[in-house]
Amino acid sequence: MLVIIPFKADEPKSRLGKVMTKTERRKFAYMMLEDVIDQVERASLDWRVLATSSVPLDNVIIDKRDLNTAINSLIPDKTPLMVVMSDLPLIKSEHLKKILEKNADVVIAPGRRGGTNILAVRSSKFRVSYYGASFCKHVQKARQLSLSLEIFDSFFTSIDIDGVEELIELLIHGNGKSKAYLKSLGFSLNYDSTIPELYRPKELLP
Amino acid sequence: MLVIIPFKADEPKSRLGKVMTKTERRKFAYMMLEDVIDQVERASLDWRVLATSSVPLDNVIIDKRDLNTAINSLIPDKTPLMVVMSDLPLIKSEHLKKILEKNADVVIAPGRRGGTNILAVRSSKFRVSYYGASFCKHVQKARQLSLSLEIFDSFFTSIDIDGVEELIELLIHGNGKSKAYLKSLGFSLNYDSTIPELYRPKELLP
Repeated sequence: MLVIIPFKADEPKSRLGKVMTKTERRKFAYMMLEDVIDQVERASLDWRVLATSSVPLDNVIIDKRDLNTAINSLIPDKTPLMVVMSDLPLIKSEHLKKILEKNADVVIAPGRRGGTNILAVRSSKFRVSYYGASFCKHVQKARQLSLSLEIFDSFFTSIDIDGVEELIELLIHGNGKSKAYLKSLGFSLNYDSTIPELYRPKELLP
Repeated sequence: MLVIIPFKADEPKSRLGKVMTKTERRKFAYMMLEDVIDQVERASLDWRVLATSSVPLDNVIIDKRDLNTAINSLIPDKTPLMVVMSDLPLIKSEHLKKILEKNADVVIAPGRRGGTNILAVRSSKFRVSYYGASFCKHVQKARQLSLSLEIFDSFFTSIDIDGVEELIELLIHGNGKSKAYLKSLGFSLNYDSTIPELYRPKELLP
């Protein structure tokens, strides 16, 4: 199954703007992408990064259209395919292997707030609809088309790095390049408070 | 395996104070407890609610001490036991059955921010340490004691209802009594925005 990894090189994680410079966010986003690719390769899967502008990697599809149009144009020919977001640094090859083992026409690994973090599509009739509550829209789409559907239940794949909250998850549970990069930027966890809090020395903040 | 369900009857979810009255929060907390008990019973497991004050249920252990002291006093005699938090309304009996199948001395289902949402203990040597980054402390404790450890990876058991964010998860993914109660209070999701937002008619807000 081909893995498509959407990646926005030019719009790095703006919600991290308070704790990282734009250059740092760009590098961090790229480290997360590398973490995802590492796990995809460990699962012996073929992959393409789907980007709106050039990325210094071999397997890149450049498509300047919106994500839905870009992926839906791939589905008829490239199915079965799996769409794996690039900001899932807690993903492991085992997750991908387990998703591969499922035979449903559509498999969804949910993120918080109705997100779709991983989507495996075995039917060329299916169409994606990211943005908004994409999880709900993908469930509905599968039902409309009478496709079989399975929800892949994983805490680690549910963590897409969006804001500061998720950096905490990465520091607690991560062990890849993006976590190492965070630590190199001076990030650590303060365990003294009731719940762990993100810390970066003031002089390193943007 | 005996299931212990800690429940604070007198301190209902204060972080929901902006969207629910104290009476509503108390009833909501109780509905979540019932959802958890329903799934524990479906898994054919024996259970006790561990409460600091009386609860209108049969299987209640009243212990006014802090949670750690109360649970650690149960471990030597009641092991193997499983501690399942009462604010996990997305839990299913299948999760509990899968945890039961694991043979590790300690099994942890993580919550966000280093939380421990479910903890199965097969060794009477283990001691719990809730509050703060309990996940990290429990992992460390198991290692110190050379106990085998497994992480139970589930999105649905990772959602402990703390603030408004988690009500969104319950409305998207839930189907038990606590979700029905939320809906009866006028809560719904607004799918028009980029990410789904919680909505309750102004006249119903506290």
